Amino acid sequence: MDLNVIELESLIERCLNEDVGTGDLTTESIVSAGAETEAVIIAKEEGVIAGLPVAEAVFRRVDPFVVFSALVKDGDRVQRGQVLVETSGRARPILTAERLALNFLQRLSGVATRTARLVELVAGQRAVVVDTRKTTPGLRLLEKYAVRVGGGRNHRFGLYDAVLVKENHIKIAGSITTAVELAGRGAPHMIKIEVEVEDLAGVQEALEAGADIIMLDNMTPAEMKKAVELAAGRALLEASGGITEENIRAVASTGVDFISVGALTHSVKSLDISMLLR
Amino acid sequence: MDLNVIELESLIERCLNEDVGTGDLTTESIVSAGAETEAVIIAKEEGVIAGLPVAEAVFRRVDPFVVFSALVKDGDRVQRGQVLVETSGRARPILTAERLALNFLQRLSGVATRTARLVELVAGQRAVVVDTRKTTPGLRLLEKYAVRVGGGRNHRFGLYDAVLVKENHIKIAGSITTAVELAGRGAPHMIKIEVEVEDLAGVQEALEAGADIIMLDNMTPAEMKKAVELAAGRALLEASGGITEENIRAVASTGVDFISVGALTHSVKSLDISMLLR
Amino acid sequence: MDLNVIELESLIERCLNEDVGTGDLTTESIVSAGAETEAVIIAKEEGVIAGLPVAEAVFRRVDPFVVFSALVKDGDRVQRGQVLVETSGRARPILTAERLALNFLQRLSGVATRTARLVELVAGQRAVVVDTRKTTPGLRLLEKYAVRVGGGRNHRFGLYDAVLVKENHIKIAGSITTAVELAGRGAPHMIKIEVEVEDLAGVQEALEAGADIIMLDNMTPAEMKKAVELAAGRALLEASGGITEENIRAVASTGVDFISVGALTHSVKSLDISMLLR
Amino acid sequence: MDLNVIELESLIERCLNEDVGTGDLTTESIVSAGAETEAVIIAKEEGVIAGLPVAEAVFRRVDPFVVFSALVKDGDRVQRGQVLVETSGRARPILTAERLALNFLQRLSGVATRTARLVELVAGQRAVVVDTRKTTPGLRLLEKYAVRVGGGRNHRFGLYDAVLVKENHIKIAGSITTAVELAGRGAPHMIKIEVEVEDLAGVQEALEAGADIIMLDNMTPAEMKKAVELAAGRALLEASGGITEENIRAVASTGVDFISVGALTHSVKSLDISMLLR
Amino acid sequence: MDLNVIELESLIERCLNEDVGTGDLTTESIVSAGAETEAVIIAKEEGVIAGLPVAEAVFRRVDPFVVFSALVKDGDRVQRGQVLVETSGRARPILTAERLALNFLQRLSGVATRTARLVELVAGQRAVVVDTRKTTPGLRLLEKYAVRVGGGRNHRFGLYDAVLVKENHIKIAGSITTAVELAGRGAPHMIKIEVEVEDLAGVQEALEAGADIIMLDNMTPAEMKKAVELAAGRALLEASGGITEENIRAVASTGVDFISVGALTHSVKSLDISMLLR
Amino acid sequence: MDLNVIELESLIERCLNEDVGTGDLTTESIVSAGAETEAVIIAKEEGVIAGLPVAEAVFRRVDPFVVFSALVKDGDRVQRGQVLVETSGRARPILTAERLALNFLQRLSGVATRTARLVELVAGQRAVVVDTRKTTPGLRLLEKYAVRVGGGRNHRFGLYDAVLVKENHIKIAGSITTAVELAGRGAPHMIKIEVEVEDLAGVQEALEAGADIIMLDNMTPAEMKKAVELAAGRALLEASGGITEENIRAVASTGVDFISVGALTHSVKSLDISMLLR
Repeated sequence: MDLNVIELESLIERCLNEDVGTGDLTTESIVSAGAETEAVIIAKEEGVIAGLPVAEAVFRRVDPFVVFSALVKDGDRVQRGQVLVETSGRARPILTAERLALNFLQRLSGVATRTARLVELVAGQRAVVVDTRKTTPGLRLLEKYAVRVGGGRNHRFGLYDAVLVKENHIKIAGSITTAVELAGRGAPHMIKIEVEVEDLAGVQEALEAGADIIMLDNMTPAEMKKAVELAAGRALLEASGGITEENIRAVASTGVDFISVGALTHSVKSLDISMLLR
Repeated sequence: MDLNVIELESLIERCLNEDVGTGDLTTESIVSAGAETEAVIIAKEEGVIAGLPVAEAVFRRVDPFVVFSALVKDGDRVQRGQVLVETSGRARPILTAERLALNFLQRLSGVATRTARLVELVAGQRAVVVDTRKTTPGLRLLEKYAVRVGGGRNHRFGLYDAVLVKENHIKIAGSITTAVELAGRGAPHMIKIEVEVEDLAGVQEALEAGADIIMLDNMTPAEMKKAVELAAGRALLEASGGITEENIRAVASTGVDFISVGALTHSVKSLDISMLLR
Repeated sequence: MDLNVIELESLIERCLNEDVGTGDLTTESIVSAGAETEAVIIAKEEGVIAGLPVAEAVFRRVDPFVVFSALVKDGDRVQRGQVLVETSGRARPILTAERLALNFLQRLSGVATRTARLVELVAGQRAVVVDTRKTTPGLRLLEKYAVRVGGGRNHRFGLYDAVLVKENHIKIAGSITTAVELAGRGAPHMIKIEVEVEDLAGVQEALEAGADIIMLDNMTPAEMKKAVELAAGRALLEASGGITEENIRAVASTGVDFISVGALTHSVKSLDISMLLR
Repeated sequence: MDLNVIELESLIERCLNEDVGTGDLTTESIVSAGAETEAVIIAKEEGVIAGLPVAEAVFRRVDPFVVFSALVKDGDRVQRGQVLVETSGRARPILTAERLALNFLQRLSGVATRTARLVELVAGQRAVVVDTRKTTPGLRLLEKYAVRVGGGRNHRFGLYDAVLVKENHIKIAGSITTAVELAGRGAPHMIKIEVEVEDLAGVQEALEAGADIIMLDNMTPAEMKKAVELAAGRALLEASGGITEENIRAVASTGVDFISVGALTHSVKSLDISMLLR
Repeated sequence: MDLNVIELESLIERCLNEDVGTGDLTTESIVSAGAETEAVIIAKEEGVIAGLPVAEAVFRRVDPFVVFSALVKDGDRVQRGQVLVETSGRARPILTAERLALNFLQRLSGVATRTARLVELVAGQRAVVVDTRKTTPGLRLLEKYAVRVGGGRNHRFGLYDAVLVKENHIKIAGSITTAVELAGRGAPHMIKIEVEVEDLAGVQEALEAGADIIMLDNMTPAEMKKAVELAAGRALLEASGGITEENIRAVASTGVDFISVGALTHSVKSLDISMLLR
Repeated sequence: MDLNVIELESLIERCLNEDVGTGDLTTESIVSAGAETEAVIIAKEEGVIAGLPVAEAVFRRVDPFVVFSALVKDGDRVQRGQVLVETSGRARPILTAERLALNFLQRLSGVATRTARLVELVAGQRAVVVDTRKTTPGLRLLEKYAVRVGGGRNHRFGLYDAVLVKENHIKIAGSITTAVELAGRGAPHMIKIEVEVEDLAGVQEALEAGADIIMLDNMTPAEMKKAVELAAGRALLEASGGITEENIRAVASTGVDFISVGALTHSVKSLDISMLLR
């Protein structure tokens, strides 16, 4: 659930520059340089919080001396009206940093909240909820972190850290067997090989080809169940495609190992969070 | 509706690096360097397309020689199953670029589609649908472009290109009057001054203080109507807060000049778009 | 008069790298690593100081532990021989940082001093002295800050935060009326629209087209006076072109609202400032 | 007189971003995307041109397909009214690029023109006019290029490519002799060693210490003449400090090898150049 | 064996800037801007070539119009005196680019040559020669590419794309079993888990803990042989530590799957290659 | 022997990103966030240490609060088994930073150790051991620093800070005389001019042309001795090409001023150094 921070500072600098540009005209006109203030960041609806270290880093980048006291931590479920953070210090940087800090916090909490809901729906089953590469360009690390905060796990981070043979690759290779074989020869030995299949014949072929993981693309729960029986532990199985809050429990009950959900990151409702001066 | 491109290339390079990193293990293992292919990008649901030039730039960054023929243009409404783009060339770069190109296209088309729906709902009214600063960190220019593509207009791009006196500023200044006056003295003369108010007394005070634009925060349509009468053209009025597809027509019929909707960019459902090899 | 600092550090890093490169050969050869020193930064001519926070940031970038005590602050008028800063600490970083710190301080104080002289010449008049986009590439924020320090105000920061319809735009649009109308439709609603005109007929057309601000380009004071009468408060007026210390008072006395002076930033004499070891 | 281009593109990108930011509001509103135009860049006063390749690179960065035909080349002396460049192509990028291209061209031509005037004043003498490190932060390479274009030569580019022992170094070292000796031991063997002295005793000491070049700081022509006799070719001599158009000929006639002039770059009047649509 | 190119251009720009800086003084002084030349790049000793696309990119970055005809390709074994590349075009950029192009080519060919020698020594055995993370900071992708060119395969690219539990991790976890178990729970499911052990008891514990790969650290060939028997295909085995040209065949004959050699990249003798004008 | 630090931080950030990327999977899985540890960095063979400030900066970049106590300093000769650094603090950042810190330390100590060996071999002679531009792309400053740490001196840092007329330049110029003359006219006056020659006739011509330094390329010691006699102090002499531990003493005894050795940086064996938890 750790947040890798090596490039966080430069991401924040770029994003602050996007928002603040040549200066915060409103704040600089109205608030004197010496003015101090206290503010609270409040959840305006229930959800799971993610992104507090990012929000804090935004405030610190604008003013290293700001006081930022988080009353909750990433992964906590909060209630409507609950105070998440108390902050105080010079008023100008607090007002200037507000929007970007909230933009991160709202989006990441939105991802975590959505993930948590799906994780809850499959509770007690073998299946683990995982994300995809359908993330917001530029924010993949943060969004994948929010998925972990929400109780999900991460699928590959990019094209470089796993092999996932998809329909288009199979079309070019000619068959699942050839594609998996080529991947096994070409990819680093530390990397597992997953292959996407669309029916039980595909599952069978993938098993024989020695795939480590088989993605069941848009299969019905009934088909998935048969795939689980067919695999019998020889490969991990991942359900994918068209997963919703309505059908995820049925999918999980088929016995698949993973359920991947693109919507965790590609179609997120931000959690409603705001900042108020005291 | 233009897309400023000065920094687009470095954004794309950063995002490609995020996805491709040390290489596309799957494609490099399975697809030979010389293989050529043809592919189509297809809408899998109805919507308004935005981001084709970004998608094209992603493909070109990976392979300058790829053929990328868009059959529609940004702003076009497309149907489920409609082919948006035909692309051909070396198979490897096409497969490697696919996900990032789609991630941009799906998200921006999601923003445009949502905007278009709201714009349609207020058709025939004076009110113009505008966005906010609640955008995805790092993608503000692209998302504001998608709002324009969808028929909306842009509110300020950041803290630097307009004055928007919000509740927290007023609290520090002591009154609407003082805040607007300070803003008028401090901000560049080319910039208009907007102030957020919460009731009709606030509208009255803002009018007297000489605000160019008054944001009516979370008022009822009835209050907004009175605000329109009160203002009588002396300031532009912007409705804000809690706007939904259900209530936007009622809000528009009050006669306000602008309706700002944070959800245009902070809570977007990506449009379903995918790429298929032929 | 605030100095936006988000990108100041990376500007200073780039500029230090330009000057120091692979190392300060002279200082590293002659001054031992442990040597300490005290130095003063002194004005060698009268003027208005601007850029002390930039100079301090340069010293701190080379040595975070340097003592940098400013005896004056930005905006102060100083006399020949006056000590501006006392600094002490390790001798090497102080000597290495000296030139870049002074290059910033001398140039920005030159801008502030020149601005202050013109502001003084129009004292008691309505007219406000403003800058232009004729700034040094890469240093616009700092130079516009120095203009504010000198008592002037800033015109737009770039092409993105205001509309200024110039002669070339009018030529393409066909008329002032068409150009202003197109700008009104195309530009964000928070942005004011200014149009450049060359004679009284232009002023009349611009007024009727609804321009917020009219730039009187290279008009005589007599013409400007008539423009002021013609406008009668319906638009702000900006005198521009060929403004000198000799004619600025006459221009101001016509009643225009703004006088813009490109030479504030495009043709500046650095203020003479130097550093001496004690 | 070559212009090193390795980092020119990223400098131009940064500076374009400074000016254009989120878009050229005026041009995008008024000029249609397909409109074409022709324009000329014209000198509005006499001078020596420098920076045409930079101006061209600015135009090309905004539109790779723009036609940019220079009728003169860097180093040419041009007359008031003379056309320097004919350009044509899409109207929008030409208008958007105009200001930055001119900002570079005007400033660099200002440096070249000033240099050429001083070079002319010492024509027929041994003395060579050279620049200093008192350049605009971020633009040193371009400004030093403009000095060469104007007929001057470059002193060191930074602290890294030559040793110049200044008053402050000598104070720390204890004596000219010690300072020069330490520099000789510490600096790379490919680098020459220059030392700043303030009187004839200093010249004598520097000669004995084996300095390659001696900078005569703020000496009178009479003293310089004696320094030339004293040196008798054993070291090169550089006059420095307080050089003006009035006294440079007298300084040159003392027989010094170099005359360095900080004002070549720290106090420049831009050459008046503008762009007109045809 | 593909070379990922997304960030190659910015690496080359940084490295060119390191070498060329403010300009190639020698070439600009001696060679006229218009001069053309022809040159050949020649191997001065036998070896396996790697890095031709990098060398070509260096030349192209300095002059997009240079002719660069490679007569061999990466992976070819070349003889002393063999011409690798014929290049022609403007003389200046060819001379300026020479050193950086050769620095890349010599180093990468050194890595490939060394790798090829070891690969040859284990020919006919099951064992595959792999690299480590002991690469040159900043050049990991290129050096790992050169290992592939030389016939080796790549171990993980960094800390992010595989789990390798080392001695220090085990010390903190308390035991191999705990460490492997924690890694299995914490790491993404697409990633294999390797654990470093020092004796046969460690091998046994790692096997029981379910490690995918076991690294045999500094074991004797006799011990390795027993480890192979013990594992009996339940995990892959990697020999590591102290591998030399003298002992690699003995190590391979134990039946291990991988032999990792840090010296492939941390202690490389550049291949002797130079450029001659014709 | 100073290490210029202006760009060290961004180099380290780039290199950390190369190694850590999206996170240290192993450490984050196995080591709890709060765990603390103590570790030592130990030399596993005898040599001269270089790069401790770089290693420390790597640790600090990952965790500003790590304790890093160096028991030796750059330039010290250490014995096998000697503890170089004691470090303590949070366990995770120490494990994550380990490899990059060691990669720098091992390589730079390898360069210093090799340099020291050659310096020792010429002890008592006039000749100074110097490096070349055959450095690792991206690490030139660090490697040249390591050469100084090892007791060598630096030749030019790049193409920009000295003139070195090589065989290819002479071929284009037509003769040594012309080449040296052109260089003298074109290069900044603070820069010395060196010319590469291949025989005694070349030495004679270079002396007459006024070269400051003459590089004797691949001459025999006997020829070098004659060159020293011929030069008689009129120019410095640098032996270059094919220098080994076996022949360097003979070369030095010819009386040349410098001996340049490309292998100091292009073919280095890393010093064996590792980190152990206590």
